[in-house]
Amino acid sequence: MRRVPSGIAPILAIDKKDPRSLYKQIYDGYRKAIVDGALGAGQRVPSTRVLAVEAGISRIPVLSAYAQLLAEGYFESHVGSGTIVSRSLPHRAAAPSPALNPLKDAEGAGGRPISKRGSLIPRAGDPYHRSQLVPFGLGQIAFEHFPLQVWNRLVTRRSRTLSAGSLSYGDPMGWKGLRETIAAHLRAARGVRCEADQIMIVSGSQQGLEITARVLFDPGNRVWMEEPGYNFARNVFAFHGCQVISVPVDSEGLSVAAGVKRARNARAALVTPSHQYPLGVTMSASRRLQLLDWAKSHGSWIIEDDYDSEYRYEGNPVTSLQGLDRTSRVIYIGTFSKVLFPSLRLGYVVVPADLIERFLAARFIMEISPATFHQTVLADFIREGHFSRHIRRMRLIYGERRSALIESLRSNLGEAAEVAGAEAGMHLSAIVKGISDREVAQRAASQGLSLTPLSPFYASEPPQQGFILGFSNTSVEEIPAAVRRLRLALRC
Amino acid sequence: MRRVPSGIAPILAIDKKDPRSLYKQIYDGYRKAIVDGALGAGQRVPSTRVLAVEAGISRIPVLSAYAQLLAEGYFESHVGSGTIVSRSLPHRAAAPSPALNPLKDAEGAGGRPISKRGSLIPRAGDPYHRSQLVPFGLGQIAFEHFPLQVWNRLVTRRSRTLSAGSLSYGDPMGWKGLRETIAAHLRAARGVRCEADQIMIVSGSQQGLEITARVLFDPGNRVWMEEPGYNFARNVFAFHGCQVISVPVDSEGLSVAAGVKRARNARAALVTPSHQYPLGVTMSASRRLQLLDWAKSHGSWIIEDDYDSEYRYEGNPVTSLQGLDRTSRVIYIGTFSKVLFPSLRLGYVVVPADLIERFLAARFIMEISPATFHQTVLADFIREGHFSRHIRRMRLIYGERRSALIESLRSNLGEAAEVAGAEAGMHLSAIVKGISDREVAQRAASQGLSLTPLSPFYASEPPQQGFILGFSNTSVEEIPAAVRRLRLALRC
Repeated sequence: MRRVPSGIAPILAIDKKDPRSLYKQIYDGYRKAIVDGALGAGQRVPSTRVLAVEAGISRIPVLSAYAQLLAEGYFESHVGSGTIVSRSLPHRAAAPSPALNPLKDAEGAGGRPISKRGSLIPRAGDPYHRSQLVPFGLGQIAFEHFPLQVWNRLVTRRSRTLSAGSLSYGDPMGWKGLRETIAAHLRAARGVRCEADQIMIVSGSQQGLEITARVLFDPGNRVWMEEPGYNFARNVFAFHGCQVISVPVDSEGLSVAAGVKRARNARAALVTPSHQYPLGVTMSASRRLQLLDWAKSHGSWIIEDDYDSEYRYEGNPVTSLQGLDRTSRVIYIGTFSKVLFPSLRLGYVVVPADLIERFLAARFIMEISPATFHQTVLADFIREGHFSRHIRRMRLIYGERRSALIESLRSNLGEAAEVAGAEAGMHLSAIVKGISDREVAQRAASQGLSLTPLSPFYASEPPQQGFILGFSNTSVEEIPAAVRRLRLALRC
Repeated sequence: MRRVPSGIAPILAIDKKDPRSLYKQIYDGYRKAIVDGALGAGQRVPSTRVLAVEAGISRIPVLSAYAQLLAEGYFESHVGSGTIVSRSLPHRAAAPSPALNPLKDAEGAGGRPISKRGSLIPRAGDPYHRSQLVPFGLGQIAFEHFPLQVWNRLVTRRSRTLSAGSLSYGDPMGWKGLRETIAAHLRAARGVRCEADQIMIVSGSQQGLEITARVLFDPGNRVWMEEPGYNFARNVFAFHGCQVISVPVDSEGLSVAAGVKRARNARAALVTPSHQYPLGVTMSASRRLQLLDWAKSHGSWIIEDDYDSEYRYEGNPVTSLQGLDRTSRVIYIGTFSKVLFPSLRLGYVVVPADLIERFLAARFIMEISPATFHQTVLADFIREGHFSRHIRRMRLIYGERRSALIESLRSNLGEAAEVAGAEAGMHLSAIVKGISDREVAQRAASQGLSLTPLSPFYASEPPQQGFILGFSNTSVEEIPAAVRRLRLALRC
């Protein structure tokens, strides 16, 4: 390594052992010196010949580096006066990199101001999507039962048919083939009244809520939310400036009468009628019709997150709210995250026909269009019958786990825990009086149990204490031991 | 098919040839009658025995349907008085489905009000992402040269290693393995100063802009945009309530002096320094340093969309603005849509270290986390050297197409078209005086040419007329004929 005293230029360290080319070392050295202010505007630099000789290297890399610095405007070259640092560069005081100015939420020059509304979003440390693969975790599927072989076969088959069309930007609404498949599935399985044109493919119910909020809401609009309810939806509405109105849930689902009392003219209501999140209640027919009537007479919208509708253990599947709607006021949202697997990131929104154009525009400015490949794989999976076979199979498996959990909770906790919301889905709730559910959950974490406390799902009402217990990822054999650990954590 | 006069219940049409089960026909028939108001609250329905006898069917499906209607709350059953339509159902006037009330952008009860801000988003009919695979189309790659065999091999290999971990929700920042790979690539190829922790995987540059806008901007903030500039970015900022300040672009890129004159204290500037969209100019070193100095002294942010940086035909690659920044004011955005393929929907944002938490929260409420599978495939593709090999190869191919296009434009149009912005990227601009570029583009469309007129990229300045000509999807052999058709459309 030789140090090159290059005239009035800064010391360039040129090292033949440096993995960077000589060209790159020279280019980087000058650029850094200029950017850091060590070399100022108008300062002369040595000629390429001089630099090459002094550094003991060929002139070629020096010429290339100078040419690049000239092309980028760091250098200027003048006949007769040689090469200088460009005069048009702003003056930069030579100084070490300053410490970062602190971030500021508020407005103001200096500092590094960020948005106020952005700072309203809670940190994303929620246990729901971070939960380990341990007993009672939520949002986890029975991964070992997913038909990976079938899936991989479809992946490989689709790989072989990739074409220019499938590599180009797709339709912002999603791939037509999948939309047709989903429309047919929803009509048959959920009583949804829809055509393929109304289906928008999204990355999951969260993105469905996001796009819906963009189309329907302006800041200040009031939105009914179930209480207790899905906090991640609350966060979306709050981010978009909505006033979230908490409406209590009872054994029939959201209380329409209470909603009317609190905010009769709300712009919309978000409900999870198949399996209320988090309590697990199924909304009664009476409430469904009341809600539709309210929406119709107040010019409001209903957002139906048809969460956990695929697995129902008691009674027949309950038809969707959307299927009862005669006035096109329901935005229906569903996801494959629970019924297939979460990292697939595919879900759908059923959009009222006259809102399609708006939804399309709103999705387009967010991300143009969804990725194509797995849409084609999923369409094959559904069309060829693997999807309904998988659901039927998982309904049996989850049903057994659910029964084992209920049985074990009864025999271990007896009257101490009231089991609710177990008719459907992949979790149930256990209401426990006289405890702090957060404290118990913390104790349980140290024993390898992922307990989701119920009380944080309440935004304004006095909360019930209890736990949302996922049973989808815990085998029948593991359940009794997990419940015994829960009893220990409860100290009852 | 038999028509069943079922007491005071409505006529149920039960058809043994109907593919729906008898259970379903009975259930659907009652539900529809209740929802439509044909059956009112409190009305008595026939007993299951009577209905079965009258319809001439087994009692089993009738019992199941009644049980379901009871479970869902449509029916009530009273000892001694039989089964009635539930009294708690709201009264619904029997009426045909009303015509939909019209949508309303404004507030107001009745109607079906939607958001005002949503109606600001232009319809997504832009030619950019809808362009056919025809000469001069934008955003199209040379699909026939994509190494599909290699890609498919990596897809198949990754398929075989899917595990519970890779099926679960991923990190909202993206898969760690890909983030490490991209950080290493950006440090080496683009001079970006970053660690893997700062990389957020997004679905493309559009989603990168969306998340950035959420973190940085509140309604009313002013943002510099290049004029002419990327309309899809303008739409994002406008949707989020920003005041977009158009700042002219000259041969050195965005004019910082003009920006300072128009809105000195703007919250941010969006620039495309490698290959300005749409003109194709490369931002000079002087302007880069001026912009950084402005950002530092006014507490502003720079959003660097490093569009088209991979393909440079003259001079060496120009280092990113981010790499020159010493005050962590640059949000760097890149995408694989052009360098691999658009329907992959993978890109990245390099986030200043102290903003990571905010970006993560903003992405989380939008869609939780990105899909995992193709992130793992892409990481393999980069790590195993296929990515740089592909770029080198495509640079040669696109370079030939570019030369052929420039040559053909010169020999066919001569002085009539001024070619600009051809140093890099996958398109160049041809400025043509004395025409209406929109009219010419319309004429050209009927001749199978996808001409993108330049003037719509101007929001406030008097526009230049001309065309953005993509050359990436047109072979050297096809170019002369395409240019001759362009000449015909121009009538020169």
